[in-house]
Amino acid sequence: MTSPDALFMLTSGRLEARMKSHTVHLTMNVPARMDFVNITRDVERVVADSGVKEGLCLVNAMHITASVFINDDEPGLHEDYKRWLEQLAPFDPSPSRYHHNRTGEDNGDAHHKRQVMGREVVVAVTKGELDFGPWERIFYGEFDGRRPKRVLVKVIGE
Amino acid sequence: MTSPDALFMLTSGRLEARMKSHTVHLTMNVPARMDFVNITRDVERVVADSGVKEGLCLVNAMHITASVFINDDEPGLHEDYKRWLEQLAPFDPSPSRYHHNRTGEDNGDAHHKRQVMGREVVVAVTKGELDFGPWERIFYGEFDGRRPKRVLVKVIGE
Amino acid sequence: MTSPDALFMLTSGRLEARMKSHTVHLTMNVPARMDFVNITRDVERVVADSGVKEGLCLVNAMHITASVFINDDEPGLHEDYKRWLEQLAPFDPSPSRYHHNRTGEDNGDAHHKRQVMGREVVVAVTKGELDFGPWERIFYGEFDGRRPKRVLVKVIGE
Repeated sequence: MTSPDALFMLTSGRLEARMKSHTVHLTMNVPARMDFVNITRDVERVVADSGVKEGLCLVNAMHITASVFINDDEPGLHEDYKRWLEQLAPFDPSPSRYHHNRTGEDNGDAHHKRQVMGREVVVAVTKGELDFGPWERIFYGEFDGRRPKRVLVKVIGE
Repeated sequence: MTSPDALFMLTSGRLEARMKSHTVHLTMNVPARMDFVNITRDVERVVADSGVKEGLCLVNAMHITASVFINDDEPGLHEDYKRWLEQLAPFDPSPSRYHHNRTGEDNGDAHHKRQVMGREVVVAVTKGELDFGPWERIFYGEFDGRRPKRVLVKVIGE
Repeated sequence: MTSPDALFMLTSGRLEARMKSHTVHLTMNVPARMDFVNITRDVERVVADSGVKEGLCLVNAMHITASVFINDDEPGLHEDYKRWLEQLAPFDPSPSRYHHNRTGEDNGDAHHKRQVMGREVVVAVTKGELDFGPWERIFYGEFDGRRPKRVLVKVIGE
């Protein structure tokens, strides 16, 4: 047997434990064809606004010639990545190297670079914050810039 | 103080907010050694069946010579990917290039191609639908086909 | 109309359905510069301890010169991966190949190898266990070892 008062207290406890979700689309404007932008603070803000204390945070490029990845905020490394990606999948607007460019596009290389660097990251949210190692930062990777593109941030948890 | 009726209404509201999950294994049969199959509609159906309005959808290959990735549904690009992956990790059944083929397997290359293209994608579910950019489509990537393989789709949320 | 007893039973049913989460940081000590460690059992233990029956399990490297990936527990394949990654991004402590090494680091190559193999995996938890295909195993991939590093395992679900 239980009284309505006891029930309400039990119920209140669970109110905080129910699932929450929060979704934000960021807009990126990168003036170069290829570049990397640190979006860690934007993601931290979305996590804070979500009110989620324990959960997961998905961050993904919504465009297929762009990436979201986690690595070091070090300009020399970013130069290395650009040179390396250019070797693995060189920019070439002609339709001879990339059949994709037969469609009238010139960004076949960008679809390849994005696969190397990845579409998304999933980050743990613990005690209301991104549960990160000491050097982890979140980057938007642009491989066909000079027009607005979007990044999705979704937090789910309790 | 609260009455049983008020409690019940409060409770009903939370009934909809509790976590749901739904899991489906798709079976893929790709006649070629390497090919890409658009599985976006299959995943959309699983999301609709799940009843989840806000959450995350995981889609992953359950086999280690296959990928799930998101990119463009454009045949020229898919030809480009195949040629590029063949350069990065050529098919070679001999055990000289791939030690893995000393086990009697001939698919060492497929284990490499899968790492470039990735095992899984995590997609946001917003208002009951995949929260996608304009050109995002989900593909199963097969690198050692000609036998049935499985893809896992799991939706969690509320 | 409903009685307090009925409410309590309804409430109890939902107590099991509320979201749970469980977070563990594993510490890795890899004596070689590059090596792969099977951490499947450690992850299985975290999932069992979480009490989650249906949900998602995130496993990620907390360091940016390391990976978590899923593939085969076959030593020949691991040798193949090492040789292949060394071709794609050779170790070279000089600052001429990797600008990153101008910072005094010698691990520019490791930041590239990690991008090929990936930062994280997300695995479905179904009926209280990792929902795996027959050969899926979880590996920690070290590319700049000989010091302690951490792996995050987070399970959310119900």
